[in-house]
Amino acid sequence: MKILIAPDSFKESLSAVEVADCIEQGIKNYKPDIECIKIPLADGGEGTVEAVLRATGGRKISLRVKDPLSRDIDSYWGLLPDNETAILEMAAASGLELLLPEERNPMYTSTFGVGQLIQSALDYGCKKIYIGIGGSATNDGGAGMAKALGVKFLDDKNEEVGDGGRFLSKINNIDRTGVDQRIKNCEFIVISDVQNPMCGEKGASNVYGPQKGADPDMVKQLDLNLYHFGELLEEITNYKILDLPGAGAAGGLGGGLVAFCNADIRPGFETISEITDIEKFIQSADLVFTGEGKLDYQTKYGKVPYGVAQLSRKYGKPVIGIAGSLGNNYEELYKYGFQGIVSIAEGPISLEDSIKNSKKLITNTAERIVRISFMFENK
Amino acid sequence: MKILIAPDSFKESLSAVEVADCIEQGIKNYKPDIECIKIPLADGGEGTVEAVLRATGGRKISLRVKDPLSRDIDSYWGLLPDNETAILEMAAASGLELLLPEERNPMYTSTFGVGQLIQSALDYGCKKIYIGIGGSATNDGGAGMAKALGVKFLDDKNEEVGDGGRFLSKINNIDRTGVDQRIKNCEFIVISDVQNPMCGEKGASNVYGPQKGADPDMVKQLDLNLYHFGELLEEITNYKILDLPGAGAAGGLGGGLVAFCNADIRPGFETISEITDIEKFIQSADLVFTGEGKLDYQTKYGKVPYGVAQLSRKYGKPVIGIAGSLGNNYEELYKYGFQGIVSIAEGPISLEDSIKNSKKLITNTAERIVRISFMFENK
Repeated sequence: MKILIAPDSFKESLSAVEVADCIEQGIKNYKPDIECIKIPLADGGEGTVEAVLRATGGRKISLRVKDPLSRDIDSYWGLLPDNETAILEMAAASGLELLLPEERNPMYTSTFGVGQLIQSALDYGCKKIYIGIGGSATNDGGAGMAKALGVKFLDDKNEEVGDGGRFLSKINNIDRTGVDQRIKNCEFIVISDVQNPMCGEKGASNVYGPQKGADPDMVKQLDLNLYHFGELLEEITNYKILDLPGAGAAGGLGGGLVAFCNADIRPGFETISEITDIEKFIQSADLVFTGEGKLDYQTKYGKVPYGVAQLSRKYGKPVIGIAGSLGNNYEELYKYGFQGIVSIAEGPISLEDSIKNSKKLITNTAERIVRISFMFENK
Repeated sequence: MKILIAPDSFKESLSAVEVADCIEQGIKNYKPDIECIKIPLADGGEGTVEAVLRATGGRKISLRVKDPLSRDIDSYWGLLPDNETAILEMAAASGLELLLPEERNPMYTSTFGVGQLIQSALDYGCKKIYIGIGGSATNDGGAGMAKALGVKFLDDKNEEVGDGGRFLSKINNIDRTGVDQRIKNCEFIVISDVQNPMCGEKGASNVYGPQKGADPDMVKQLDLNLYHFGELLEEITNYKILDLPGAGAAGGLGGGLVAFCNADIRPGFETISEITDIEKFIQSADLVFTGEGKLDYQTKYGKVPYGVAQLSRKYGKPVIGIAGSLGNNYEELYKYGFQGIVSIAEGPISLEDSIKNSKKLITNTAERIVRISFMFENK
């Protein structure tokens, strides 16, 4: 009996790695000799590097970079076992969680640190760089990132503009002569499920600006600035940037990576499953556990557990989805390859207590499920 | 595939019959052709008659009786298919739930209605009467019940005393000359898991008086009164009543039934399983569902789901326990024959919402469990 454990993180509670460890513990509590393979997954947000490294092996590269407000912080990226592929997460350098609530202001925050992460990966000789771009604190269209790689953003006096979304409108000229030439020989893949264009009603500023600390006036300004910036990017690249689905991800970093690094924007599960070779593990498993903080009808719109269920169904493997909470019409998921859809709650409980006790609750749930699923075999 | 569904009630929420119906619905939602046998169980409290009749067949006999405050109410008891056996529940005539909170006062409440139920069963020719005595509003030692059957309780002026616990101290003489003679040819079985003696620290008044509306002074008085009454019962019967385990059940009705009806006091699950012949159904089942409002380490102290699990283990049948809430150290139950122990909660939820949605939640839980338990068969 071989069980594949391939959960996403439980947002605001546990990383995918922690969730996978708890599920394994629960299974082992029941039967220590069940073989467990843990492939923690991620969708590109916080925890993506940790999850990918745990799944693939490889090592974590630590370095100091600039945080969104240009202060030095400890950051990291992951070097995969081939020594040529990097996995980065923007949240580790320019993430919202790095700032205190009162510091959050996308007029000022910069993606400079992301550029430093890329530079470090290039220094290690990487030829392929995956960048997860969830959880950003920024709305600078990736200007900071490009600056770290040697691009100059000049105003009408030919002087470099400052950092942050507010300065994008001042840019008159983008000078790429000093750009790190290694990016040309490197493949960039942006991991993002966000489909938003750079600007407009569904653009980065309007949709994600407020949660990054922008008030309505700022949102308006940021949107205009990003539009100006996007037009410039289209001019210098001849790429369609402004309306590209995903260009608005991470405050326009998506668009910036396309423009400056020739990046491909690809969906989270598809990309992570490629990196981790999850399909191979599913094929060799008898049973698959996946999960996420919440499972509901929206899970079928490309979320990690849905992807796991789809692949598992392809090989006829039963899948159990574990969640902190089962939401609206979660029953629909039974149609999409899930054999079991289970909450970790053991009775009436507050969200706070559920989060506080999530490790124990997930462990208990995994034990519960294996006990039930094997009960006819144990007679 | 045959599934036995044998739950207790979910207290304050659903009767055992309702719980069984929901579990069946969940199973059928998944696979309509799974054969389900429903034997709703009970521990002697409210819902016992309904549960037993559903399990055994037979019919409900309706009648008017006196409620605990001597008002006429609709009540009932169950006549089993042999036409000689009755199942009664004291809660249907003298239950706490029949009174408004402000009416609850065991100085005044009487078990007279229970005596009327017994009389009705005798009128139908019953030779065996099971009486479930959970949920009482009374603390009268069964004096009211006996009065309905023709016993006279006389004071020192040879006048009949009034109803309720406060009058027990006035009794000087118990006159059984007018008692219904049919009780002598009838076997009485009290269904009760309560082990309390009639009086003292662990007696009826001290332990259960407060929840029936007695303040500390009343509790003291009721305990003294019940002691006086118990002494009289011992005098006239030569039975040990005061210290008999279970004599303190239902405000001393346990002791009263022993004294006046020569009743046996027997544990809930053992007795109900005898009446319903549950063991036979377990033998023929492939899988057993049971459940209760809460499952925790205390479940092993003789509660219904524990009894079901014990019997099922005897025949090597897997048992799933479903609960509104899994409480302290519920994991211990895995040692006692439970293969699965599952809460109905689908995520963070309040007790109130859990109760309000319990039908849907139980149905979903049953479906979830069958899906998981059969997943390897469906590949």
